Amino acid sequence: MSKNVATSPHASNGENSVKEACVRKAMEVIAEKGLEGLSLRAVARALGISHQAPYKHFPSRDHLLAEVTRRCLIDFAQALRTSGANDEGDALPPQQAMRKLGETYIRYALENPLAYRLMFSTPWPEAALELDLSRDARAAFDILVERISRLKPDTEGTTLRADALFIWTAIHGIAGAIESNAMQYLDFDAGEIEQALGHAMTLIDSAVFGAQQSETER
Amino acid sequence: MSKNVATSPHASNGENSVKEACVRKAMEVIAEKGLEGLSLRAVARALGISHQAPYKHFPSRDHLLAEVTRRCLIDFAQALRTSGANDEGDALPPQQAMRKLGETYIRYALENPLAYRLMFSTPWPEAALELDLSRDARAAFDILVERISRLKPDTEGTTLRADALFIWTAIHGIAGAIESNAMQYLDFDAGEIEQALGHAMTLIDSAVFGAQQSETER
Repeated sequence: MSKNVATSPHASNGENSVKEACVRKAMEVIAEKGLEGLSLRAVARALGISHQAPYKHFPSRDHLLAEVTRRCLIDFAQALRTSGANDEGDALPPQQAMRKLGETYIRYALENPLAYRLMFSTPWPEAALELDLSRDARAAFDILVERISRLKPDTEGTTLRADALFIWTAIHGIAGAIESNAMQYLDFDAGEIEQALGHAMTLIDSAVFGAQQSETER
Repeated sequence: MSKNVATSPHASNGENSVKEACVRKAMEVIAEKGLEGLSLRAVARALGISHQAPYKHFPSRDHLLAEVTRRCLIDFAQALRTSGANDEGDALPPQQAMRKLGETYIRYALENPLAYRLMFSTPWPEAALELDLSRDARAAFDILVERISRLKPDTEGTTLRADALFIWTAIHGIAGAIESNAMQYLDFDAGEIEQALGHAMTLIDSAVFGAQQSETER
């Protein structure tokens, strides 16, 4: 375990490396034993460090959980942000950037089900308030707002945020339906799921951008 | 506890009443201790009956869980079905019936968070396959398909189902965002949430029904 920590890019000094190791190990503990299995003691044990050591960095188990959730939010926002550019780093045209955002969102949710659940499907621990996790969540949300604003430059802020909320919840719902296997038990076969997803994306698109689309798409 | 069972409308005979009591008690056990706390033993203990008694009706804990989930699906479908008629039992006009369906869905999710989670946010137990829970899920889904078809009578089945999937996942996403308090941490105040929900419903509506609306609405 300590080898793992030593090779971490965050391990610039001993104390920081313990903190980072706790965050990474916490994610493993949750993956293995569920949220109920997470405790500072369990993380210390798994890392082979003293039971007291994690307390230097996290006043409580919930502070650790909040920090884990924050890392998920930062990583998620980074994935969304990157989706707006091509491999050379050039910004994509607005419409394409919007589509890539949706695809990236769904792929992220499916490839990182645990992170996704911590961010959006489990109530945050109370410590999230203290650690201002909202700021990190808003950073991700604002990427969506910004992409929409490029397609509807004359729209006022409140409407943009309401549009963003609609797009977010619609895609959130699709991701949830895929992850829970709901489509299978509703008798959608693989081809129909693919088709239905495309249909949903088109509907979201036309609902929010309808008339603007042809004007803004260049 | 046995008093509770005796007064149940299902308690037509002793054996059936034990089965019904197990189903109801299981819901309480899950509400109190989470899904991990559910076992046939825990339910028997809570009912004050022998540990063997539940096995007469449920080969395993997962069969009990599947049966609980089925009851939720039946109750949910019933709520959706009822939303299509006014207090006198007369069918509402198609457009109004559609809106009522959406409102009923969200209200059901918020008022029955545990049932909602069992149906749509937790993987079903394997016994669900054996007990054909899909049939009950499809019964609920088909209510939505049928309401859409009343508004778009000339649309073919595959498209209707894809429309229904879109509406369902979009509303599922909204319900999830409300339940996880995501809107609060994205700094939406109560007024904005209300407004954003209305906006989302309008967007869903226009995405799916757009042009048809004015023709079908009478």
